[in-house]
Amino acid sequence: MEKPRIVEELKPFFEPKGVAIIGATDKKGKVGNVIFENFKMNKEKGIFKGNIYPVNLKLDEIEGYKVYKNVREVPEDAELAVISIPAKFVPATMKDIAEKGIKAVVIITGGFGELGEEGKKMERDILQTAKENGIRIVGPNCVGIYAPDTGVDTVFLPENKMDRPSSGNIAFVTQSGAFAAAMLDWAAMAGIGISKMVSYGNKLDVDDADLMDYFIHDEQTKVVTLYIEGVKEGRKFIEAARRITAVKPVIALKSGKTEYGAKAASSHTGALAGADTIYDAVFKQTGILRAEDFEHMFDVAKAFAKCKLPKGDRVGIITDGGGAGVMASDAVAKFGLKMAELSKETIDFLKEKFPPHAVAGNPTDVVGDTDAQRYKYAIEAFVNDPNVDAIVIITLFQVPLLDEMELIDILAEYAQKSDKPIVAVAMGGKKTEYYAKILEDKGIPVYMTPERGVRAVAGLVQYAKYLEKLGE
Amino acid sequence: MEKPRIVEELKPFFEPKGVAIIGATDKKGKVGNVIFENFKMNKEKGIFKGNIYPVNLKLDEIEGYKVYKNVREVPEDAELAVISIPAKFVPATMKDIAEKGIKAVVIITGGFGELGEEGKKMERDILQTAKENGIRIVGPNCVGIYAPDTGVDTVFLPENKMDRPSSGNIAFVTQSGAFAAAMLDWAAMAGIGISKMVSYGNKLDVDDADLMDYFIHDEQTKVVTLYIEGVKEGRKFIEAARRITAVKPVIALKSGKTEYGAKAASSHTGALAGADTIYDAVFKQTGILRAEDFEHMFDVAKAFAKCKLPKGDRVGIITDGGGAGVMASDAVAKFGLKMAELSKETIDFLKEKFPPHAVAGNPTDVVGDTDAQRYKYAIEAFVNDPNVDAIVIITLFQVPLLDEMELIDILAEYAQKSDKPIVAVAMGGKKTEYYAKILEDKGIPVYMTPERGVRAVAGLVQYAKYLEKLGE
Repeated sequence: MEKPRIVEELKPFFEPKGVAIIGATDKKGKVGNVIFENFKMNKEKGIFKGNIYPVNLKLDEIEGYKVYKNVREVPEDAELAVISIPAKFVPATMKDIAEKGIKAVVIITGGFGELGEEGKKMERDILQTAKENGIRIVGPNCVGIYAPDTGVDTVFLPENKMDRPSSGNIAFVTQSGAFAAAMLDWAAMAGIGISKMVSYGNKLDVDDADLMDYFIHDEQTKVVTLYIEGVKEGRKFIEAARRITAVKPVIALKSGKTEYGAKAASSHTGALAGADTIYDAVFKQTGILRAEDFEHMFDVAKAFAKCKLPKGDRVGIITDGGGAGVMASDAVAKFGLKMAELSKETIDFLKEKFPPHAVAGNPTDVVGDTDAQRYKYAIEAFVNDPNVDAIVIITLFQVPLLDEMELIDILAEYAQKSDKPIVAVAMGGKKTEYYAKILEDKGIPVYMTPERGVRAVAGLVQYAKYLEKLGE
Repeated sequence: MEKPRIVEELKPFFEPKGVAIIGATDKKGKVGNVIFENFKMNKEKGIFKGNIYPVNLKLDEIEGYKVYKNVREVPEDAELAVISIPAKFVPATMKDIAEKGIKAVVIITGGFGELGEEGKKMERDILQTAKENGIRIVGPNCVGIYAPDTGVDTVFLPENKMDRPSSGNIAFVTQSGAFAAAMLDWAAMAGIGISKMVSYGNKLDVDDADLMDYFIHDEQTKVVTLYIEGVKEGRKFIEAARRITAVKPVIALKSGKTEYGAKAASSHTGALAGADTIYDAVFKQTGILRAEDFEHMFDVAKAFAKCKLPKGDRVGIITDGGGAGVMASDAVAKFGLKMAELSKETIDFLKEKFPPHAVAGNPTDVVGDTDAQRYKYAIEAFVNDPNVDAIVIITLFQVPLLDEMELIDILAEYAQKSDKPIVAVAMGGKKTEYYAKILEDKGIPVYMTPERGVRAVAGLVQYAKYLEKLGE
């Protein structure tokens, strides 16, 4: 696929040769200090490979780094400018940036369009400078960019306030900055790996459509998640969405769905939230999966990041707890999937291998006295059964005779060699969390409840069907 | 209220003077060993105050405890028998128990009614012995009872497989044993306090209705949660439900909702799952709240355990992240609640106290540069506003200037002195979990997402409305 211009335009945001940090300061805790420290730390760790150029009129040096009075004075390799100075100084600084020839700017500063006419005028000035000089802007009023692999981190919250997630395959684009911070912090704990996070705030220039086009060509990104309050340019959004969903799944959480939500959104980012049914139609048309909430979005994203796509919608369930199997069966119906009708071979094989009190069927219940081997028979049979498209393995690790690590190795083996998606459900406490983390590291997404596991499979099925229809 | 007979009948299950452990063994990991060790450990800790009488034909002594050959030989203060011997020996043992005069029996053993006609016959024998001798039975095919305050713990999973939750105000009744184990393990991690857990498996005798009647009179229990696959005696269930919901909330998770689920349930516990609409109608009539899933059940239960009941359905939202405020507003609409229209006094007060970029409204957005004091103004105003019935406080602890402990103290103060329910939403990672735990210990339930927080409030409102209607 030919790379569009946007890929080159956005590249310096994620891997700049040099970064000018305008508003860098040595005052601990200040936005301009946290951002400087992020880059400095990542450079010391060898993750950020570029040069760091603090810009501050009043300082000569910060922690051994030479400080420049004006961005016009920084060396030629500066490709990205990050701005955290007060709003009123930003329009003039943009002119300096233009003069310098820097083409990528993150404006962290708030206090623009969201606060009325004066701010909107400043935004227009800034945008004009950008347009005239081929500059792309992320922001203003945002937390900017987090790219764990290249060490770009403009998130102005220090480590003692917010953890950073590790590198992974999920891109995350969000209008809301606070949500970005909360989500990154959560992802770090949940072991969700992020390829790139972009928080664009007032979305003066770079928007969802630009980022979708960029992520088409970003090899590290397998799935894109969007948190949206409103879309300004509908046509552009739809076209970009169609392009990316033909190759990668996109999951959107659009808030402001209801009248109450829309009203709150308008006082938040000034977004004109359109009638929600329009968004529903657009998402459906363009193959974007719509998430009900934050957990839904990342549950499904995690499945895409780790699983193969199913060939159909027939789900097979294996469980060691009958009750959990019932809940999962309910969820299969609730989310519009089908319970697989197991082949006679599968049933015969399981009946032969199982003790009489285990249930060969769908759900297959290996029951509470199971060992890992009994699970293996069930997985083997389900993987080989042509009537099963996707497999949900419920493992209550609490059962007494189960060797947890043996089961994990079996699951990892089949998840790799089978071309069917396999997701796991593990309900429980600290020990379950421990084993779930190992399982996820081995490529199997794990969910806390049967509903959430089945809902994630439903996301895979929905996207697979979209692709199938597209191919016809 | 006069105590019905059931309270006396079930008392020995939760606080026996002595317990006969039939099938106690010294073989580590075996069911009869784990149960014995549970009681022994709880006795050593001073939690279990009764005497322990292991019963095993083949042993003389286990870890210093005298072993009895037959339950007929144990001392007179034995009020509870716990059975974990193979199914075929249980009918005869029941006769011994009857002869001994023990009136409370937990049958852990499986392999009865769920496995066909022969097992059903044994069940009928056992029940006949019980009926003729005034014995009450929990089980068979169950994990039995966990009562943290009195040290009764028949859950046959050792600590290295499953953690135990601390004492609290939520009673948990479940048909499914594996679900019981997974849930206890989860509750321990989530800091959910349990008053009593009863897993009744095949429900040969003691059922949901009996337990609801018991919990009416159990002072420690503030809210009852039920996991049900099917109800056998509809009339009895309805009457007991009416009695308890007049004084305490009950939340039920009824699986086997869909055709798929009902089919799975029938092969699990042999429960004849009725048409789901009937359950819906019964729950509605009797004031039982129906949970969508496991997380929903305990989210709502936690709110009941900690919050006061709201006087109406008008919700006020305070947030430091605009996006989260939008999501919460959407949830208010989704769950059938109303956004409170703040009084002029509230708006004026907040406008006076707030900087211009903070939003006085509903949601009130204290914005990302908030300190704890700004939250305090908002909470103060919402608590005093007669148009607000319930308050949802969204606190993204990641924001840089917020003193977390100062905010926690403010929230705790208002949750105590206000007569309105206050719930908190905190999205994030490890640090958020840390602060959330402190907040919950101080009496404020905390939820991971705006949706879940608002859904919990919707549960409070639904029950408050039921009580109001009842009073008319």
